[in-house]
Amino acid sequence: MGEDTRVSYQDIKARVLAAIRDNTWPPGAMLPGEVALAQEYGCARATVNRAMRELAEEGILERKRKAGTRVKLAPARQARFSIPVVREEIEALGASYRYALVSRSEEATPKWLAAQLGLGAGDRVLHLVCMHYADERPFQLEQRWINLATVPQAAKKDFSQTGPNEWLVSEVPFTDIRLSFSACRGNRETAEFLGGNETDAHFTVERVTWLGERPVTYARLLFHAGYRMTTTL
Amino acid sequence: MGEDTRVSYQDIKARVLAAIRDNTWPPGAMLPGEVALAQEYGCARATVNRAMRELAEEGILERKRKAGTRVKLAPARQARFSIPVVREEIEALGASYRYALVSRSEEATPKWLAAQLGLGAGDRVLHLVCMHYADERPFQLEQRWINLATVPQAAKKDFSQTGPNEWLVSEVPFTDIRLSFSACRGNRETAEFLGGNETDAHFTVERVTWLGERPVTYARLLFHAGYRMTTTL
Repeated sequence: MGEDTRVSYQDIKARVLAAIRDNTWPPGAMLPGEVALAQEYGCARATVNRAMRELAEEGILERKRKAGTRVKLAPARQARFSIPVVREEIEALGASYRYALVSRSEEATPKWLAAQLGLGAGDRVLHLVCMHYADERPFQLEQRWINLATVPQAAKKDFSQTGPNEWLVSEVPFTDIRLSFSACRGNRETAEFLGGNETDAHFTVERVTWLGERPVTYARLLFHAGYRMTTTL
Repeated sequence: MGEDTRVSYQDIKARVLAAIRDNTWPPGAMLPGEVALAQEYGCARATVNRAMRELAEEGILERKRKAGTRVKLAPARQARFSIPVVREEIEALGASYRYALVSRSEEATPKWLAAQLGLGAGDRVLHLVCMHYADERPFQLEQRWINLATVPQAAKKDFSQTGPNEWLVSEVPFTDIRLSFSACRGNRETAEFLGGNETDAHFTVERVTWLGERPVTYARLLFHAGYRMTTTL
Protein backbone atom coordinates (compact mmCIF):
# COMPACT_ATOMS: atom_id res chain seq x y z
CA MET A 1 0.00 0.00 0.00
CA GLY A 2 1.34 3.47 -0.82
CA GLU A 3 1.73 6.27 1.71
CA ASP A 4 -1.39 8.36 2.11
CA THR A 5 -0.53 11.77 3.52
CA ARG A 6 -4.18 12.37 4.36
CA VAL A 7 -3.99 9.75 7.14
CA SER A 8 -3.62 11.67 10.40
CA TYR A 9 -2.02 10.44 13.61
CA GLN A 10 -5.51 10.64 15.18
CA ASP A 11 -6.73 8.13 12.60
CA ILE A 12 -3.88 5.81 13.56
CA LYS A 13 -4.65 6.23 17.27
CA ALA A 14 -8.28 5.33 16.59
CA ARG A 15 -7.27 2.24 14.61
CA VAL A 16 -4.82 1.06 17.28
CA LEU A 17 -7.45 1.60 19.99
CA ALA A 18 -10.00 -0.31 17.92
CA ALA A 19 -7.57 -3.23 17.58
CA ILE A 20 -7.01 -3.19 21.34
CA ARG A 21 -10.73 -3.06 22.04
CA ASP A 22 -11.65 -5.87 19.65
CA ASN A 23 -8.89 -7.94 21.23
CA THR A 24 -6.67 -8.20 18.14
CA TRP A 25 -4.04 -7.02 20.59
CA PRO A 26 -5.03 -8.14 24.09
CA PRO A 27 -3.42 -6.77 27.27
CA GLY A 28 0.28 -7.58 27.22
CA ALA A 29 0.41 -8.21 23.46
CA MET A 30 3.43 -7.02 21.49
CA LEU A 31 2.60 -4.61 18.67
CA PRO A 32 4.26 -4.81 15.22
CA GLY A 33 7.12 -2.40 14.64
CA GLU A 34 6.47 1.14 13.44
CA VAL A 35 7.68 0.39 9.90
CA ALA A 36 5.30 -2.55 9.62
CA LEU A 37 2.41 -0.52 11.02
CA ALA A 38 3.12 2.39 8.68
CA GLN A 39 2.95 -0.04 5.81
CA GLU A 40 -0.24 -1.67 7.08
CA TYR A 41 -1.97 1.67 7.67
CA GLY A 42 -0.51 3.23 4.54
CA CYS A 43 0.98 6.27 6.22
CA ALA A 44 4.33 7.79 7.13
CA ARG A 45 6.33 6.19 9.92
CA ALA A 46 6.38 9.56 11.74
CA THR A 47 2.58 9.47 11.85
CA VAL A 48 2.63 6.03 13.50
CA ASN A 49 5.35 7.23 15.86
CA ARG A 50 3.28 10.19 17.04
CA ALA A 51 0.19 8.02 17.57
CA MET A 52 2.19 5.47 19.57
CA ARG A 53 3.83 8.18 21.64
CA GLU A 54 0.48 9.67 22.60
CA LEU A 55 -1.04 6.28 23.41
CA ALA A 56 1.93 5.59 25.66
CA GLU A 57 1.48 8.96 27.38
CA GLU A 58 -2.19 8.10 27.92
CA GLY A 59 -1.12 4.89 29.65
CA ILE A 60 -2.53 2.52 27.03
CA LEU A 61 0.73 1.34 25.50
CA GLU A 62 4.05 0.64 27.14
CA ARG A 63 7.15 1.40 25.06
CA LYS A 64 10.60 0.09 25.84
CA ARG A 65 13.59 1.01 23.74
CA LYS A 66 14.74 -2.53 23.07
CA ALA A 67 11.71 -4.65 23.85
CA GLY A 68 9.31 -2.73 21.61
CA THR A 69 5.73 -1.64 22.27
CA ARG A 70 3.12 -3.61 24.19
CA VAL A 71 -0.46 -3.13 25.24
CA LYS A 72 -0.17 -2.25 28.88
CA LEU A 73 -1.35 -4.84 31.35
CA ALA A 74 -3.85 -3.74 33.95
CA PRO A 75 -2.16 -1.39 36.40
CA ALA A 76 -1.47 -2.82 39.85
CA ARG A 77 -4.80 -2.75 41.59
CA GLN A 78 -3.73 -0.90 44.67
CA ALA A 79 -5.83 1.96 45.88
CA ARG A 80 -4.41 4.72 47.98
CA PHE A 81 -6.58 6.71 50.27
CA SER A 82 -5.27 9.62 52.20
CA ILE A 83 -6.63 9.65 55.71
CA PRO A 84 -7.02 13.31 56.52
CA VAL A 85 -7.80 14.84 59.85
CA VAL A 86 -11.57 15.35 59.66
CA ARG A 87 -11.26 19.15 59.91
CA GLU A 88 -9.08 19.17 56.79
CA GLU A 89 -11.48 16.87 54.96
CA ILE A 90 -14.42 19.17 55.73
CA GLU A 91 -12.52 22.34 54.86
CA ALA A 92 -11.39 20.76 51.58
CA LEU A 93 -15.11 20.45 50.72
CA GLY A 94 -15.37 24.21 51.13
CA ALA A 95 -17.54 23.78 54.22
CA SER A 96 -17.06 25.37 57.61
CA TYR A 97 -15.93 23.01 60.34
CA ARG A 98 -17.25 22.79 63.86
CA TYR A 99 -16.12 20.44 66.62
CA ALA A 100 -18.15 19.52 69.69
CA LEU A 101 -17.29 17.35 72.66
CA VAL A 102 -20.22 15.12 73.62
CA SER A 103 -18.72 13.33 76.59
CA ARG A 104 -15.40 12.69 78.33
CA SER A 105 -14.72 10.09 81.00
CA GLU A 106 -11.77 8.29 82.49
CA GLU A 107 -12.64 4.64 82.95
CA ALA A 108 -11.33 1.09 83.33
CA THR A 109 -10.67 -0.43 79.93
CA PRO A 110 -13.84 -2.20 78.74
CA LYS A 111 -13.23 -5.92 78.20
CA TRP A 112 -13.80 -5.84 74.43
CA LEU A 113 -11.23 -3.04 74.11
CA ALA A 114 -8.72 -4.78 76.39
CA ALA A 115 -9.04 -7.87 74.20
CA GLN A 116 -8.72 -5.89 70.99
CA LEU A 117 -5.70 -3.85 72.08
CA GLY A 118 -4.03 -6.41 74.33
CA LEU A 119 -4.43 -4.25 77.44
CA GLY A 120 -4.77 -5.49 81.00
CA ALA A 121 -8.10 -5.20 82.78
CA GLY A 122 -6.52 -2.75 85.23
CA ASP A 123 -5.38 -0.32 82.53
CA ARG A 124 -7.29 2.92 82.33
CA VAL A 125 -8.48 4.70 79.24
CA LEU A 126 -9.89 8.10 78.43
CA HIS A 127 -13.17 7.65 76.58
CA LEU A 128 -14.32 10.53 74.38
CA VAL A 129 -17.36 10.98 72.19
CA CYS A 130 -17.14 13.87 69.74
CA MET A 131 -19.08 15.33 66.84
CA HIS A 132 -17.71 16.95 63.71
CA TYR A 133 -19.99 19.20 61.66
CA ALA A 134 -19.69 20.48 58.07
CA ASP A 135 -21.68 23.70 57.59
CA GLU A 136 -23.61 22.71 60.73
CA ARG A 137 -24.70 19.39 59.24
CA PRO A 138 -23.57 16.27 61.14
CA PHE A 139 -20.55 14.82 59.34
CA GLN A 140 -18.85 12.36 61.67
CA LEU A 141 -19.48 10.81 65.06
CA GLU A 142 -16.18 9.92 66.73
CA GLN A 143 -15.96 7.33 69.51
CA ARG A 144 -12.44 7.29 70.88
CA TRP A 145 -10.46 5.59 73.61
CA ILE A 146 -6.96 6.76 74.57
CA ASN A 147 -4.66 4.40 76.48
CA LEU A 148 -3.59 6.41 79.54
CA ALA A 149 -0.60 4.12 80.17
CA THR A 150 0.88 5.25 76.86
CA VAL A 151 -0.49 8.80 76.82
CA PRO A 152 -0.73 9.91 80.48
CA GLN A 153 -0.82 13.60 79.49
CA ALA A 154 -4.27 13.08 77.91
CA ALA A 155 -5.73 12.90 81.43
CA LYS A 156 -4.98 16.62 81.87
CA LYS A 157 -6.56 17.70 78.60
CA ASP A 158 -10.28 18.58 78.58
CA PHE A 159 -10.77 18.27 74.78
CA SER A 160 -13.50 20.90 74.86
CA GLN A 161 -11.90 23.02 72.13
CA THR A 162 -9.72 20.63 70.10
CA GLY A 163 -10.58 17.10 69.04
CA PRO A 164 -8.44 14.18 70.19
CA ASN A 165 -7.29 13.34 66.67
CA GLU A 166 -5.69 16.75 66.07
CA TRP A 167 -4.24 16.76 69.56
CA LEU A 168 -2.78 13.25 69.28
CA VAL A 169 -1.21 13.95 65.90
CA SER A 170 0.66 16.91 67.32
CA GLU A 171 1.55 15.39 70.71
CA VAL A 172 2.11 11.66 70.45
CA PRO A 173 4.31 9.84 67.96
CA PHE A 174 3.07 6.57 66.54
CA THR A 175 4.70 3.83 64.55
CA ASP A 176 1.88 1.60 63.32
CA ILE A 177 -1.73 2.02 62.27
CA ARG A 178 -4.37 -0.58 61.57
CA LEU A 179 -7.29 0.70 59.54
CA SER A 180 -10.57 -1.06 58.85
CA PHE A 181 -13.41 0.07 56.64
CA SER A 182 -16.86 -1.38 57.11
CA ALA A 183 -20.55 -0.53 57.16
CA CYS A 184 -22.47 -0.16 60.36
CA ARG A 185 -26.21 -0.18 60.83
CA GLY A 186 -27.55 2.84 62.67
CA ASN A 187 -29.08 2.78 66.11
CA ARG A 188 -30.78 5.27 68.39
CA GLU A 189 -27.52 7.05 69.27
CA THR A 190 -26.32 7.43 65.66
CA ALA A 191 -29.77 8.64 64.60
CA GLU A 192 -29.68 11.27 67.34
CA PHE A 193 -26.22 12.51 66.51
CA LEU A 194 -25.92 11.96 62.76
CA GLY A 195 -29.55 12.71 61.87
CA GLY A 196 -31.47 10.34 59.62
CA ASN A 197 -32.98 7.26 61.18
CA GLU A 198 -32.04 4.10 63.03
CA THR A 199 -31.91 1.89 59.97
CA ASP A 200 -29.44 4.10 58.07
CA ALA A 201 -26.16 2.52 57.01
CA HIS A 202 -23.03 4.36 58.09
CA PHE A 203 -19.61 4.05 56.47
CA THR A 204 -17.26 3.32 59.36
CA VAL A 205 -13.53 3.70 59.80
CA GLU A 206 -11.80 2.00 62.72
CA ARG A 207 -8.25 2.98 63.51
CA VAL A 208 -5.82 1.53 66.03
CA THR A 209 -2.50 3.30 66.56
CA TRP A 210 0.61 1.97 68.28
CA LEU A 211 3.86 3.45 69.52
CA GLY A 212 6.18 0.48 69.19
CA GLU A 213 4.45 -2.31 71.13
CA ARG A 214 2.19 0.03 73.09
CA PRO A 215 -1.36 0.76 71.94
CA VAL A 216 -1.98 4.52 71.79
CA THR A 217 -5.62 4.86 70.78
CA TYR A 218 -8.62 3.16 69.23
CA ALA A 219 -11.10 5.27 67.26
CA ARG A 220 -14.38 4.38 65.62
CA LEU A 221 -15.53 7.00 63.14
CA LEU A 222 -19.09 6.83 61.83
CA PHE A 223 -19.91 9.02 58.86
CA HIS A 224 -23.29 10.51 57.98
CA ALA A 225 -25.47 8.33 55.73
CA GLY A 226 -24.59 8.91 52.09
CA TYR A 227 -20.90 9.61 52.74
CA ARG A 228 -18.54 8.32 50.03
CA MET A 229 -14.78 7.99 50.17
CA THR A 230 -13.47 8.26 46.63
CA THR A 231 -10.10 7.87 44.99
CA THR A 232 -8.84 7.80 41.41
CA LEU A 233 -5.93 5.71 40.24
CA MET B 1 27.59 11.07 86.90
CA GLY B 2 30.06 8.23 86.41
CA GLU B 3 29.66 5.47 83.84
CA ASP B 4 27.62 2.54 85.09
CA THR B 5 28.37 -0.58 83.07
CA ARG B 6 25.29 -2.30 84.47
CA VAL B 7 23.04 0.06 82.45
CA SER B 8 21.89 -1.90 79.38
CA TYR B 9 20.86 -0.51 76.02
CA GLN B 10 17.34 -1.84 76.79
CA ASP B 11 17.27 0.43 79.87
CA ILE B 12 18.22 3.38 77.68
CA LYS B 13 15.56 2.49 75.13
CA ALA B 14 12.95 2.36 77.90
CA ARG B 15 14.05 5.76 79.24
CA VAL B 16 14.02 7.39 75.80
CA LEU B 17 10.54 5.91 75.12
CA ALA B 18 9.33 7.18 78.50
CA ALA B 19 10.59 10.67 77.67
CA ILE B 20 8.80 10.53 74.32
CA ARG B 21 5.60 9.31 75.93
CA ASP B 22 5.57 11.94 78.69
CA ASN B 23 6.15 14.56 76.03
CA THR B 24 9.61 15.66 77.26
CA TRP B 25 10.47 15.08 73.62
CA PRO B 26 7.33 15.64 71.51
CA PRO B 27 7.06 14.55 67.84
CA GLY B 28 9.68 16.38 65.80
CA ALA B 29 11.83 17.30 68.84
CA MET B 30 15.60 17.16 68.51
CA LEU B 31 17.30 14.83 70.99
CA PRO B 32 20.54 15.74 72.79
CA GLY B 33 23.71 14.28 71.28
CA GLU B 34 24.90 10.81 72.24
CA VAL B 35 27.71 12.12 74.44
CA ALA B 36 25.29 14.30 76.41
CA LEU B 37 22.80 11.43 76.75
CA ALA B 38 25.53 9.00 77.87
CA GLN B 39 26.44 11.51 80.55
CA GLU B 40 22.82 12.06 81.59
CA TYR B 41 22.05 8.33 81.75
CA GLY B 42 25.46 7.47 83.25
CA CYS B 43 26.40 4.88 80.67
CA ALA B 44 28.80 4.30 77.78
CA ARG B 45 28.23 6.19 74.55
CA ALA B 46 28.11 2.85 72.70
CA THR B 47 25.13 1.85 74.85
CA VAL B 48 23.28 5.02 73.89
CA ASN B 49 24.25 4.48 70.27
CA ARG B 50 22.78 0.99 70.20
CA ALA B 51 19.54 2.12 71.84
CA MET B 52 19.18 4.98 69.36
CA ARG B 53 19.91 2.73 66.41
CA GLU B 54 17.20 0.28 67.45
CA LEU B 55 14.65 3.02 68.09
CA ALA B 56 15.40 4.36 64.61
CA GLU B 57 14.92 0.88 63.13
CA GLU B 58 11.61 0.63 64.95
CA GLY B 59 10.49 3.86 63.30
CA ILE B 60 10.35 5.93 66.48
CA LEU B 61 13.41 8.10 65.94
CA GLU B 62 14.77 9.60 62.76
CA ARG B 63 18.56 9.90 62.51
CA LYS B 64 20.35 12.09 60.02
CA ARG B 65 24.12 12.25 59.81
CA LYS B 66 24.43 16.01 60.09
CA ALA B 67 21.08 17.11 61.51
CA GLY B 68 21.14 14.72 64.47
CA THR B 69 18.33 12.60 65.93
CA ARG B 70 14.67 13.61 66.15
CA VAL B 71 11.46 12.04 67.35
CA LYS B 72 9.77 11.01 64.16
CA LEU B 73 6.71 12.96 63.15
CA ALA B 74 3.56 11.00 62.38
CA PRO B 75 4.06 8.99 59.20
CA ALA B 76 2.19 10.23 56.14
CA ARG B 77 -1.36 9.12 56.71
CA GLN B 78 -1.90 7.39 53.43
CA ALA B 79 -3.59 4.03 53.45
CA ARG B 80 -3.07 1.54 50.70
CA PHE B 81 -5.62 -1.11 49.97
CA SER B 82 -5.05 -3.75 47.42
CA ILE B 83 -8.16 -4.43 45.42
CA PRO B 84 -8.08 -8.11 44.68
CA VAL B 85 -10.28 -10.05 42.33
CA VAL B 86 -12.96 -11.44 44.67
CA ARG B 87 -11.95 -15.05 44.00
CA GLU B 88 -8.42 -14.29 45.20
CA GLU B 89 -9.76 -12.52 48.28
CA ILE B 90 -11.93 -15.50 49.20
CA GLU B 91 -9.18 -18.04 48.52
CA ALA B 92 -6.77 -15.97 50.64
CA LEU B 93 -9.21 -16.50 53.54
CA GLY B 94 -8.75 -20.23 53.07
CA ALA B 95 -12.35 -20.59 51.89
CA SER B 96 -13.58 -22.28 48.75
CA TYR B 97 -14.87 -19.94 46.08
CA ARG B 98 -18.01 -20.33 44.03
CA TYR B 99 -19.32 -18.01 41.34
CA ALA B 100 -22.92 -17.87 40.12
CA LEU B 101 -24.53 -15.80 37.40
CA VAL B 102 -27.89 -14.43 38.52
CA SER B 103 -28.91 -12.58 35.38
CA ARG B 104 -27.52 -11.30 32.09
CA SER B 105 -29.20 -8.87 29.73
CA GLU B 106 -28.23 -6.54 26.94
CA GLU B 107 -30.05 -3.26 27.37
CA ALA B 108 -30.13 0.43 26.55
CA THR B 109 -27.98 2.36 29.01
CA PRO B 110 -30.15 3.42 31.97
CA LYS B 111 -30.28 7.20 32.34
CA TRP B 112 -28.51 7.29 35.70
CA LEU B 113 -25.63 5.24 34.25
CA ALA B 114 -25.45 7.32 31.06
CA ALA B 115 -25.17 10.41 33.25
CA GLN B 116 -22.56 8.86 35.49
CA LEU B 117 -20.36 7.51 32.69
CA GLY B 118 -21.00 10.21 30.10
CA LEU B 119 -22.62 7.76 27.66
CA GLY B 120 -25.26 8.59 25.09
CA ALA B 121 -28.83 7.38 25.56
CA GLY B 122 -28.45 5.15 22.46
CA ASP B 123 -25.39 3.30 23.80
CA ARG B 124 -25.99 -0.27 24.84
CA VAL B 125 -24.65 -2.01 27.91
CA LEU B 126 -24.44 -5.58 29.12
CA HIS B 127 -26.01 -5.77 32.58
CA LEU B 128 -24.90 -8.65 34.80
CA VAL B 129 -25.85 -9.63 38.32
CA CYS B 130 -23.54 -12.17 39.93
CA MET B 131 -22.98 -13.80 43.28
CA HIS B 132 -19.70 -14.79 44.88
CA TYR B 133 -19.72 -17.35 47.70
CA ALA B 134 -17.08 -18.22 50.30
CA ASP B 135 -17.55 -21.77 51.61
CA GLU B 136 -21.12 -21.53 50.30
CA ARG B 137 -21.88 -18.46 52.39
CA PRO B 138 -22.87 -15.33 50.45
CA PHE B 139 -19.82 -13.06 50.24
CA GLN B 140 -20.47 -10.46 47.55
CA LEU B 141 -23.32 -9.39 45.31
CA GLU B 142 -21.98 -7.86 42.11
CA GLN B 143 -24.07 -5.57 39.94
CA ARG B 144 -22.16 -4.79 36.77
CA TRP B 145 -22.66 -2.90 33.54
CA ILE B 146 -20.25 -3.27 30.62
CA ASN B 147 -20.16 -0.60 27.89
CA LEU B 148 -20.63 -2.53 24.65
CA ALA B 149 -19.26 0.34 22.55
CA THR B 150 -15.89 -0.11 24.27
CA VAL B 151 -16.07 -3.87 24.83
CA PRO B 152 -18.11 -5.32 21.94
CA GLN B 153 -16.72 -8.82 22.51
CA ALA B 154 -18.59 -9.00 25.86
CA ALA B 155 -21.83 -9.47 23.89
CA LYS B 156 -20.60 -12.92 22.79
CA LYS B 157 -19.64 -14.06 26.28
CA ASP B 158 -22.30 -15.80 28.41
CA PHE B 159 -20.51 -15.32 31.80
CA SER B 160 -22.04 -18.51 33.14
CA GLN B 161 -18.67 -19.95 34.22
CA THR B 162 -16.38 -16.96 34.76
CA GLY B 163 -17.28 -13.67 36.40
CA PRO B 164 -17.00 -10.42 34.44
CA ASN B 165 -14.25 -9.05 36.67
CA GLU B 166 -11.84 -11.90 35.95
CA TRP B 167 -12.76 -11.86 32.27
CA LEU B 168 -12.32 -8.08 31.92
CA VAL B 169 -8.96 -8.10 33.68
CA SER B 170 -7.60 -10.63 31.20
CA GLU B 171 -9.27 -9.25 28.07
CA VAL B 172 -9.60 -5.49 28.24
CA PRO B 173 -6.88 -3.01 29.09
CA PHE B 174 -7.82 -0.03 31.20
CA THR B 175 -6.07 3.17 32.06
CA ASP B 176 -8.05 4.77 34.87
CA ILE B 177 -10.11 3.58 37.80
CA ARG B 178 -12.36 5.52 40.12
CA LEU B 179 -13.10 3.75 43.37
CA SER B 180 -15.65 4.72 46.00
CA PHE B 181 -16.24 3.14 49.36
CA SER B 182 -19.54 3.67 51.14
CA ALA B 183 -22.20 1.96 53.20
CA CYS B 184 -25.49 0.90 51.71
CA ARG B 185 -28.67 -0.01 53.51
CA GLY B 186 -30.06 -3.40 52.60
CA ASN B 187 -33.29 -3.99 50.71
CA ARG B 188 -35.35 -6.96 49.69
CA GLU B 189 -32.92 -7.98 46.94
CA THR B 190 -29.79 -7.79 49.11
CA ALA B 191 -31.53 -9.70 51.89
CA GLU B 192 -32.44 -12.44 49.43
CA PHE B 193 -28.98 -12.73 47.97
CA LEU B 194 -26.69 -11.86 50.85
CA GLY B 195 -28.79 -13.36 53.63
CA GLY B 196 -29.50 -11.35 56.76
CA ASN B 197 -32.34 -8.85 56.63
CA GLU B 198 -33.44 -5.72 54.84
CA THR B 199 -32.06 -3.31 57.40
CA ASP B 200 -28.52 -4.71 57.32
CA ALA B 201 -25.71 -2.32 56.36
CA HIS B 202 -23.50 -3.43 53.50
CA PHE B 203 -19.98 -2.19 52.83
CA THR B 204 -20.04 -1.15 49.19
CA VAL B 205 -17.33 -0.65 46.60
CA GLU B 206 -18.14 1.16 43.38
CA ARG B 207 -15.64 0.99 40.57
CA VAL B 208 -15.60 2.78 37.22
CA THR B 209 -12.92 1.81 34.72
CA TRP B 210 -11.85 3.69 31.60
CA LEU B 211 -9.72 2.93 28.57
CA GLY B 212 -8.46 6.39 27.71
CA GLU B 213 -11.61 8.53 27.37
CA ARG B 214 -13.93 5.55 26.94
CA PRO B 215 -15.81 4.09 29.90
CA VAL B 216 -15.30 0.32 30.09
CA THR B 217 -17.44 -0.79 33.02
CA TYR B 218 -19.24 0.27 36.17
CA ALA B 219 -19.49 -2.20 39.05
CA ARG B 220 -21.27 -2.01 42.37
CA LEU B 221 -20.05 -4.61 44.84
CA LEU B 222 -22.08 -5.18 48.00
CA PHE B 223 -20.44 -7.26 50.71
CA HIS B 224 -22.15 -9.43 53.28
CA ALA B 225 -23.05 -7.66 56.54
CA GLY B 226 -20.09 -7.72 58.91
CA TYR B 227 -17.45 -7.57 56.16
CA ARG B 228 -14.35 -5.53 57.04
CA MET B 229 -11.61 -4.32 54.73
CA THR B 230 -8.43 -4.00 56.79
CA THR B 231 -4.95 -2.67 56.16
CA THR B 232 -1.89 -2.03 58.29
CA LEU B 233 0.56 0.80 57.69
